[in-house]
Amino acid sequence: MSVSAVLVVEDEPLILLDVETALQEAGFEVVAVKDAEQALAAFDADPTKFKGLVTDIRLGSGRSGWEIARHLRQANSTIPVIYMSGDSAIHWGAEGVPESVMITKPFFLPQIITALSTLMNAQPAPSTNDPED
Amino acid sequence: MSVSAVLVVEDEPLILLDVETALQEAGFEVVAVKDAEQALAAFDADPTKFKGLVTDIRLGSGRSGWEIARHLRQANSTIPVIYMSGDSAIHWGAEGVPESVMITKPFFLPQIITALSTLMNAQPAPSTNDPED
Amino acid sequence: MSVSAVLVVEDEPLILLDVETALQEAGFEVVAVKDAEQALAAFDADPTKFKGLVTDIRLGSGRSGWEIARHLRQANSTIPVIYMSGDSAIHWGAEGVPESVMITKPFFLPQIITALSTLMNAQPAPSTNDPED
Amino acid sequence: MSVSAVLVVEDEPLILLDVETALQEAGFEVVAVKDAEQALAAFDADPTKFKGLVTDIRLGSGRSGWEIARHLRQANSTIPVIYMSGDSAIHWGAEGVPESVMITKPFFLPQIITALSTLMNAQPAPSTNDPED
Amino acid sequence: MSVSAVLVVEDEPLILLDVETALQEAGFEVVAVKDAEQALAAFDADPTKFKGLVTDIRLGSGRSGWEIARHLRQANSTIPVIYMSGDSAIHWGAEGVPESVMITKPFFLPQIITALSTLMNAQPAPSTNDPED
Amino acid sequence: MSVSAVLVVEDEPLILLDVETALQEAGFEVVAVKDAEQALAAFDADPTKFKGLVTDIRLGSGRSGWEIARHLRQANSTIPVIYMSGDSAIHWGAEGVPESVMITKPFFLPQIITALSTLMNAQPAPSTNDPED
Repeated sequence: MSVSAVLVVEDEPLILLDVETALQEAGFEVVAVKDAEQALAAFDADPTKFKGLVTDIRLGSGRSGWEIARHLRQANSTIPVIYMSGDSAIHWGAEGVPESVMITKPFFLPQIITALSTLMNAQPAPSTNDPED
Repeated sequence: MSVSAVLVVEDEPLILLDVETALQEAGFEVVAVKDAEQALAAFDADPTKFKGLVTDIRLGSGRSGWEIARHLRQANSTIPVIYMSGDSAIHWGAEGVPESVMITKPFFLPQIITALSTLMNAQPAPSTNDPED
Repeated sequence: MSVSAVLVVEDEPLILLDVETALQEAGFEVVAVKDAEQALAAFDADPTKFKGLVTDIRLGSGRSGWEIARHLRQANSTIPVIYMSGDSAIHWGAEGVPESVMITKPFFLPQIITALSTLMNAQPAPSTNDPED
Repeated sequence: MSVSAVLVVEDEPLILLDVETALQEAGFEVVAVKDAEQALAAFDADPTKFKGLVTDIRLGSGRSGWEIARHLRQANSTIPVIYMSGDSAIHWGAEGVPESVMITKPFFLPQIITALSTLMNAQPAPSTNDPED
Repeated sequence: MSVSAVLVVEDEPLILLDVETALQEAGFEVVAVKDAEQALAAFDADPTKFKGLVTDIRLGSGRSGWEIARHLRQANSTIPVIYMSGDSAIHWGAEGVPESVMITKPFFLPQIITALSTLMNAQPAPSTNDPED
Repeated sequence: MSVSAVLVVEDEPLILLDVETALQEAGFEVVAVKDAEQALAAFDADPTKFKGLVTDIRLGSGRSGWEIARHLRQANSTIPVIYMSGDSAIHWGAEGVPESVMITKPFFLPQIITALSTLMNAQPAPSTNDPED
């Protein structure tokens, strides 16, 4: 029903595959990448395509998940953001963005699906005065 | 576990089928109809059967999804209501009912499942003093 | 991704099987038991293993679901708690624990999945100053 | 700090005075009127002046508080709306607007202040790209 | 506008006076008592008079604030409950009632006013089909 | 009842005085400063004294309110944060911290009081196992 997609960023291949598969089986379209460089390139190539971000925090030697989220929010100030982390969860209060969700590892996969859906449903309705659908 | 059902109203057959199938696979019982006339007939024939409404706004030449929701809420003042819409989403603030969710098209199917479940779980507990289960 | 589990307590075998199967298919690990005695034994043997409780209220001649929830919360003051009940739902306001969800029978299975996921995602982030993940 | 105001509509003069005085002492600017005709005239003369509505439901022979709220939401789809009512409270689920609060009479005056402030704080942030303040 | 009242229970006279005065100045009617015995006697003499409870936890040699709250909720399953406590706050997850607020001492007095107002505004609307106000 | 305080940071003297006075009259203890340098010096001198931050965004030539909030959250990961801003409000989604409130100028003073009280009441209860109060 949509060419929109969720951007998933995770440097551990098995977790990336688990999350990607679970989101696809639930009914999401997914673009899955393994580091910040790929994430920002995918987003900047088509910013309006992306309806949500699910990101790990520590991503090898490149930029962190905190930085990816801030970059996306500069282009789309209300895009849903979900962080997945182990020990970095303690820094969420200082480094996270508003209206985001921190899911502490280890987690169960339906937590990601529910968090994404809940944030998408809370997006403010459009306010421009377009013709009816 | 239940003969309860969710009422789904959508005049685009492919979207109706997508939503019906997704809700059934998730575990909901569904009554799927294509316009307001069928929706109100189904509801009025057995009002206590229905535990939720998922409705499009513009439904051909008949009554709108806004009117269907108000009709159901007159009989059941807390029944969960979810609207799916494109350009009509901008009228939700004036035409929607309280404690409802507006899901803007295009959407991902798990958004409907999460919205329905969340509203059902928020229903006030019964307050009559019946014997224990 | 985890050896964590959800504890499910229900004395009607068909409902227990339905809930257990739905949670497993959604991606949760489940320990399913049929009364309070088994529930408390399973929990006390490994309290940190359990990340959530889904419990019926009336459980034969033994302790009730209200008592199971209080016992778990004494060990883990924020563990997610979901009650499933018919007529006992009216006592939730006096007998339930804070931040719990009462799901009235009959219910749809995705209500349990969404309630569990939502409560898990709302858990406070860890506050100890551990090394990064 | 503002020439913005809250519109208060109530046909019982003593309640109107109580609410007007309480809101002013709390720090709100108030425009207080006694029926729907005056309310709509005041609003339509300067729609952007009003940052919130507090309205009774039954207002003599004229239009109801339900209609006033819908009229304001057509011009400003997120303006905070608070209804004060006795027996009409049971119709809120069918006649109210989304994200509104129903305060059942009799009430305590701080309930109005808290409801207004909470809804104002939940307004979506502006999204146009203006220069910094 | 009401003969309804809030029940405040606190065994430290200076704190009791502070809370009583702040609630009265904000616009609440208050019945202030110093232990559980007086609290339960006041409530049982006129249960429908009380629209909220603000209670300390440890109250000398008598019953605790946890027990007072459960007693009131057995008569009125949705009455707003606010606990004020120092070290007992850690037991809220096991001993508190649902939809209650734990305010940790020391606190600022507007926290009590906002918590009471917010819980009162969240009370479910009446559902009986009475004549209009 | 407390030597705790709220830190208020605002470079326009009249607004600073308005906010300081309103918070004090409501019952808060306030430390009011006019720029980031003074704010950080006050906080770092006694971090546990502060129970909340209310800050403007643009503060002359020094660091911004965004930076003050992140600094405080590094020391206290759940301290309540309220931003007051005009045109900077559009950057909240990218620059704000989680669980914060953006109040757009111009605002009414009770908005600040309600936001602070609500965030303070939502603080997680202590989890260490101290003796009873």
